[in-house]
Amino acid sequence: MAEELQSQPAVWAQAVDLVAEPKLLPRAGAKVAVVGCGTSWFMAQSYAALRENAGLGVTDAFAASEAFVDRDYDAVVAITRSGTTSEVLELLGGIRGKVRTIGIVGDTSSPLVDAADDVIALPFADEKSVVQTRFATTALTFLRASTGADVSRSIADAETALTEELPEELITAEQVTYLGRGWTVGLAHEAALKMRESSQAWTESYPAMEYRHGPLAIAAPGRAVWLFGELPAGLDADVAATGAHFEHSSLDPLADLVRAHRVALERSLAAGLNPDLPRNLTRSVILGA
Amino acid sequence: MAEELQSQPAVWAQAVDLVAEPKLLPRAGAKVAVVGCGTSWFMAQSYAALRENAGLGVTDAFAASEAFVDRDYDAVVAITRSGTTSEVLELLGGIRGKVRTIGIVGDTSSPLVDAADDVIALPFADEKSVVQTRFATTALTFLRASTGADVSRSIADAETALTEELPEELITAEQVTYLGRGWTVGLAHEAALKMRESSQAWTESYPAMEYRHGPLAIAAPGRAVWLFGELPAGLDADVAATGAHFEHSSLDPLADLVRAHRVALERSLAAGLNPDLPRNLTRSVILGA
Repeated sequence: MAEELQSQPAVWAQAVDLVAEPKLLPRAGAKVAVVGCGTSWFMAQSYAALRENAGLGVTDAFAASEAFVDRDYDAVVAITRSGTTSEVLELLGGIRGKVRTIGIVGDTSSPLVDAADDVIALPFADEKSVVQTRFATTALTFLRASTGADVSRSIADAETALTEELPEELITAEQVTYLGRGWTVGLAHEAALKMRESSQAWTESYPAMEYRHGPLAIAAPGRAVWLFGELPAGLDADVAATGAHFEHSSLDPLADLVRAHRVALERSLAAGLNPDLPRNLTRSVILGA
Repeated sequence: MAEELQSQPAVWAQAVDLVAEPKLLPRAGAKVAVVGCGTSWFMAQSYAALRENAGLGVTDAFAASEAFVDRDYDAVVAITRSGTTSEVLELLGGIRGKVRTIGIVGDTSSPLVDAADDVIALPFADEKSVVQTRFATTALTFLRASTGADVSRSIADAETALTEELPEELITAEQVTYLGRGWTVGLAHEAALKMRESSQAWTESYPAMEYRHGPLAIAAPGRAVWLFGELPAGLDADVAATGAHFEHSSLDPLADLVRAHRVALERSLAAGLNPDLPRNLTRSVILGA
């Protein structure tokens, strides 16, 4: 995980330099569903918000197991590192020939390559760890660039994120809640999952404006709230009043996610765990027939 | 909270007996967005899945703060107990005169009544507690009946849920993860929030098929996984292998949520907390101008 985590800025830059692949994505104006499981679902959420907010068309994100793909979409985009995830393959099999499908994959020898009409292969971003860092953020950087966003600052900020000292409050926090707005909601979910997987920590995640509708009850001294991206008015003060640490970086939100990866890694090592082999998990969820 | 919790079957029946109000809901085939905050958002998620799965039309659920309501919806349905929630009122103000809006509200003297084109009033379900139980489940029962579902079994099961003995593992669990599929995903999110609010417990919630994609790393002896509704193949065995308690009732899923309310209440009292006044929270989130 450490090596894959560190390589992120370089691998992101490699994804942005792809020339033919962006043309495989749905055209501007197309109505699109983006699907995935776990980390890939969270990246799908971020891409969906980026694409719709950029005016490129209605874009829904679904967990592959809970997707409504019979809504006259022009295309379905599936994200899967391993290319073997049961729910994704089943979904693609069910719409074959009815809707154009595009797979974004790490392992180019996987069944996903045959299951999708078009494939965007990111083999240079694939990784050995069960815990995803690099593939997910690289896929999102590629997709983010495809919406017209300039990701060069994000790549530069990721270099900073790799070396900046981490606040002690995050390493020692008893509990961390991650928040985001728009495309950074997916980043918040991903940061929370990473901490759960690698260090078995108590984490939560929400759209930032939802936080005061209940989850704020968990905030207390010794705990932390980490916001990715835009600060909703008054939220920092509301968190401060609880005694919890409020974390908010001026780095690009995706670069800030790299800091969250580093915190997860440090906490995992501090707890004497193997960050690459989380309890109860495998690299890809392949369900019995 | 105890009194409001106990009254649920009777109040649900009252909502089902309404005659004129269901006619205010969007017609079959209409494309609908359902919005809310906190508990109301989770009820919106359940209703959206029920309506679309019943073949009544495309139905999206959004947190009011993260809604894409400019997607040519035929109607927007807003759920708010207090009728004063800032994000909901702001959203309705922004689409006034452009899309038909229907508010589902507990407090009939609130600003929501003027902000929506039509109002479905459930004042008999309103409640004094900051923590919502009855209003949310009553609104959902009303909406569920409107999709053609027979909710009589749900009401009968809720009576059973109020008296059945609660498994000791749930009262003492160090951590509880709630899962659902389709319309019960919203119930899982609501059960988790209720426990957070009333007893400051460590809870998580996911679509059931997402659970093996990461969150399973948290399962361990002394912890619990509570599934609402349909059991995905093999999930019980996968949880059992971790040593965690697996909870799955044969009661109707909404009635099973009443059991979750009871667990939250018992844990709150056992922890010496006031279940009606959760830490850091108010009855409605009203943001500064």
